[in-house]
Amino acid sequence: MTGDTPLSAALREAAAEIEHTLDMLLPQEEGPEAKLYAAMRYSVLGGGKRMRGFLVLEGAAQFGVSRVSALRVAAAIEMLHAYSLVHDDLPAMDNDELRRGKPTTHRAYGEATAILAGDALQAHAFAVLAGEDTHSDPAVRAELCLRLALAAGSKGMCGGQMLDMLAEEATEALSESAIGRLQLLKTGKLIEFSAEAGAVLGKAPGPQRHALCAYGRELGAAFQIADDILDATASAEETGKATGKDAGAGKATLVGLLGLERARVQAERLAAQARSHLDSFGERADLLRMLADYTIARRS
Amino acid sequence: MTGDTPLSAALREAAAEIEHTLDMLLPQEEGPEAKLYAAMRYSVLGGGKRMRGFLVLEGAAQFGVSRVSALRVAAAIEMLHAYSLVHDDLPAMDNDELRRGKPTTHRAYGEATAILAGDALQAHAFAVLAGEDTHSDPAVRAELCLRLALAAGSKGMCGGQMLDMLAEEATEALSESAIGRLQLLKTGKLIEFSAEAGAVLGKAPGPQRHALCAYGRELGAAFQIADDILDATASAEETGKATGKDAGAGKATLVGLLGLERARVQAERLAAQARSHLDSFGERADLLRMLADYTIARRS
Repeated sequence: MTGDTPLSAALREAAAEIEHTLDMLLPQEEGPEAKLYAAMRYSVLGGGKRMRGFLVLEGAAQFGVSRVSALRVAAAIEMLHAYSLVHDDLPAMDNDELRRGKPTTHRAYGEATAILAGDALQAHAFAVLAGEDTHSDPAVRAELCLRLALAAGSKGMCGGQMLDMLAEEATEALSESAIGRLQLLKTGKLIEFSAEAGAVLGKAPGPQRHALCAYGRELGAAFQIADDILDATASAEETGKATGKDAGAGKATLVGLLGLERARVQAERLAAQARSHLDSFGERADLLRMLADYTIARRS
Repeated sequence: MTGDTPLSAALREAAAEIEHTLDMLLPQEEGPEAKLYAAMRYSVLGGGKRMRGFLVLEGAAQFGVSRVSALRVAAAIEMLHAYSLVHDDLPAMDNDELRRGKPTTHRAYGEATAILAGDALQAHAFAVLAGEDTHSDPAVRAELCLRLALAAGSKGMCGGQMLDMLAEEATEALSESAIGRLQLLKTGKLIEFSAEAGAVLGKAPGPQRHALCAYGRELGAAFQIADDILDATASAEETGKATGKDAGAGKATLVGLLGLERARVQAERLAAQARSHLDSFGERADLLRMLADYTIARRS
């Protein structure tokens, strides 16, 4: 992040709070199965922009939700996101060696432990959401579990990852709409839920919940295109992970299909649409508005 | 199963109902990500004794829980169990080629799809538990999600699998208590939850819920020893999976530590203890009593 804007300060502060919450919620490295706990902590702690967690916190702030509740949900979503990265990086999947500037979990702990750490992180995310400390109303806890399960499952993240794998094997290039669907499932659904979760916690009226949901959906789409643009243009040093891989691996991205310039225009359009869904919110949503702009301007 | 006893008939009927419920709840093989759905269905459908699901149904029957609720919870637990088998069978883990008499999921669909199918099955189990059709009371749904997450996570199944992997690498043999703890985590916690789930659905009084829980714990321990005895004595044809592997892989089992005869005595003691926890239940618990006896007598 360059310079210190209100958004970058808020992102940094939120990341620190989420990190602290994750540290508290993850099992300590002790006992005979300490290696598993160590691999879980390694996979989650000490890195990442925590954009999904930030969305939870800012969404929750619109409805005066307690910080403790919001932080637990933010941490649960970051655990789930971290598990998906650990499994995506496996030799059988993307076979990545570097993540957030560190060796990937399977490089650091071995493949079996990495699979297991990912599995345990997914379970832990649900344990946190379903725990009484997350919200006094069990209907809210059950709803959070349901939404996360749908965002993460075969009609969400896992379905998107399957499409991504199939696209790499395919001989024909994907259409623009097929790429859009792939990315909505693979990364969009979880970002959408991150933005919506604060409204669930705050028992927000339908229209406001739907507005946040739509904001998250467009933001997620813009974010994904920006990510693909970064892969095509930035260095590994800037992003902390291998870059230039998409073209090499024949990955289905809008950058590959439309070219850099048209992809940039598309990302800008999506970010503007995301902002427009916040029109009914007051100043308290300014950080979410800035996030939409930042998403397409970032260099890492 | 030899002959037709009241238990074998009830097990067969329950397995058919659970199979039907799983078939309804799992995604249909259609759309561009059909391969993922096919791998999920392949991993779950068409096999298994459904002992965990049977425990849910019989536990629920003690409290007059609706069959629809009980079947959904039974199906969710079977999905979670199936995911754990898919991941345990992976090349990086146990590297098994045969499961329930069929090629393992990674042999049939490839390693990446198998990892993904397991991940999606775990998420789907939570989606089923948290769904409104499972119980009208959200407190019950949230409690079910919490208990499953704890049984499946790093202090349950995943922790036990980590211990199992570490035991294979270890130079010293595990003590009897260390093996007991390993098995309680790896398979016991989920069996315990299966027995308890009916009490959660039926909002049973504490003592009855605890009795079912204790029954499940002892049953699970007896079941695991019986499984290890089968591995040491039965043929692959009888069990539908590779046998005689534990000794070869240096697996930590009570059979290896105590020998066949003392392990048998221990399993019988545990099954009797399991039965004793049902003393406050009436005739309606007879199938659960028979299951305790059957668990140590079975040949597959």
